[in-house]
Amino acid sequence: MNLRDIGEGALIRKIRERFALRPLPPPDRSVPEARRVKAGEVHAGIGDDAAVFDLPPGYSAVFCSDLLAENTHFLRNLHPPDSVGYKSIAANVSDVAAMGGIPMHFLISLAAPGDLDFSWIEGFLDGVERACRDFEISLLGGDSSSAGSIFVDVSMIGRVRSSQAIRRSGAKSGDAVYVTGRLGSSALGLRLLKTGTLDDPAVRRHLYPEPRHRIGPAVADQAHAMIDISDGLSTDLAHIVAESKVCARIYKDRLPAAPGVQEHDVLHGGEEYELIIIANDLPAMIEGIPITCVGEIIDSDLDNQVFLIDGTQESVLLPSGWQHFSG
Amino acid sequence: MNLRDIGEGALIRKIRERFALRPLPPPDRSVPEARRVKAGEVHAGIGDDAAVFDLPPGYSAVFCSDLLAENTHFLRNLHPPDSVGYKSIAANVSDVAAMGGIPMHFLISLAAPGDLDFSWIEGFLDGVERACRDFEISLLGGDSSSAGSIFVDVSMIGRVRSSQAIRRSGAKSGDAVYVTGRLGSSALGLRLLKTGTLDDPAVRRHLYPEPRHRIGPAVADQAHAMIDISDGLSTDLAHIVAESKVCARIYKDRLPAAPGVQEHDVLHGGEEYELIIIANDLPAMIEGIPITCVGEIIDSDLDNQVFLIDGTQESVLLPSGWQHFSG
Repeated sequence: MNLRDIGEGALIRKIRERFALRPLPPPDRSVPEARRVKAGEVHAGIGDDAAVFDLPPGYSAVFCSDLLAENTHFLRNLHPPDSVGYKSIAANVSDVAAMGGIPMHFLISLAAPGDLDFSWIEGFLDGVERACRDFEISLLGGDSSSAGSIFVDVSMIGRVRSSQAIRRSGAKSGDAVYVTGRLGSSALGLRLLKTGTLDDPAVRRHLYPEPRHRIGPAVADQAHAMIDISDGLSTDLAHIVAESKVCARIYKDRLPAAPGVQEHDVLHGGEEYELIIIANDLPAMIEGIPITCVGEIIDSDLDNQVFLIDGTQESVLLPSGWQHFSG
Repeated sequence: MNLRDIGEGALIRKIRERFALRPLPPPDRSVPEARRVKAGEVHAGIGDDAAVFDLPPGYSAVFCSDLLAENTHFLRNLHPPDSVGYKSIAANVSDVAAMGGIPMHFLISLAAPGDLDFSWIEGFLDGVERACRDFEISLLGGDSSSAGSIFVDVSMIGRVRSSQAIRRSGAKSGDAVYVTGRLGSSALGLRLLKTGTLDDPAVRRHLYPEPRHRIGPAVADQAHAMIDISDGLSTDLAHIVAESKVCARIYKDRLPAAPGVQEHDVLHGGEEYELIIIANDLPAMIEGIPITCVGEIIDSDLDNQVFLIDGTQESVLLPSGWQHFSG
């Protein structure tokens, strides 16, 4: 059974049944008020021209999109379809968290060949459903189309307390540079996956990333600047120094490496979905995840650069992560 | 000069310069309060992890996405790139209007081959810029990627007065069925374009659609149900009767046909971006566009169907517009 046999109307009906907005459970008092979904928040979901929902008073909307193209971001014979579904959502959750926001709702635009077996779509939706549970978010609609290859674009809305959004541009000389978790496992996981390894923590991390959706809003009061590591530490920290018009100095021996990774994975590996947080003083652990101070922000005389300190050696760390259109 | 030569970073810088949020002009008193963009509404735009903006008090958010895939929705050697840019935005503006909403902000996710000439991107952005002016909306960000062919997905946020969103499900027996404008020109325009004709109103309408972004919010008080004609009158009216659990009767001799079109174009032509409005009593003209009563909503005993009346003949009008994955 392929997509052409199923047809667009039946595909949308299947998705609508599976992702119907159900009556919400009574509020879990252990969840902070700001994170509880309010009943009546969504007025229209899947199956209308557009979704309609409310933002609670005192919040601004956070709005982002992230696309996955077959053969660029994933390979159909290497990446399980539920990983493609999960990653497409997780990447957006990570972007919302990097603004200090809480993810809420998303749309999926999916283009795929008419001869794609429907089991791929079922697997993809399994990953989407798991992401909905893990991140407490809801699918509200989207679009579908036939195309020569698979293309997934997810757009997401989150909320952030008014005037608490954390930009890339707020880093100041004297601030510390923190990273969440451990770095390098997504790049290692991709290499292992290509050799046929499936049962490995790095492979699982590559296939089902763990964006820091609780840490982002938890540090929104204290962070001066923040970004998620989607293209690699070197590339994403370069965005912070460029937007903030500062320099940064990071220490190689402080970088928290995941087990078994190479130095290149730590410095340049993409799809980490850890956060770089620029702040004055953060605790060593937030929401159960280690927070490591890896360096500091310094004034910039000329260019906005990142310096890497290795013992008594200092070098310029050039952004060497993933660049589209360059391959 | 192609995309690979330009690189992702430079592409984003170019877009950011071109679509920078400029200081807003003083409010034009002829524009209703609800449509004036408030200064300070956008806190973060292109060049951060996500955009951040406020909704005015008393409004719900309207959220939709619409994707265009090369060789499915457009042909690179037939459709000018500025038409692809313009249509990708206009389709979303139409969806927001069909909920009774006012479009505000959008994101673009663009995947394209690295060897695509940069002039295609420049043309595409010309169309996006023109759409920003025509619909008084702003580009706040998005994503870009390399891919084997061109994919464009636009996601849009609009606003609608709380509890005034117009669903597909509110049609009631006795309501009248209205359509805006004249039908069939997009399908005719595509046929003419394929023969090499460029200078024709139907071709212009196919390439640069005119979504009814002023009519949707203007009838939000009176409409019981509404949808835009993106897949054809027969298919989109079928969505209304299915969601509202009613039937509809429309009269062939009342259907407002655009000049030169065939009957099939009027009944089934897609990408019209006119509105089907279900209401009790609408004026013959709204915002300078003719509004035509083409039939009525009737009770449904069994299936939810659309009946076409042609003189003394009555037949079931089957949805015969565009269906993805079926070709």
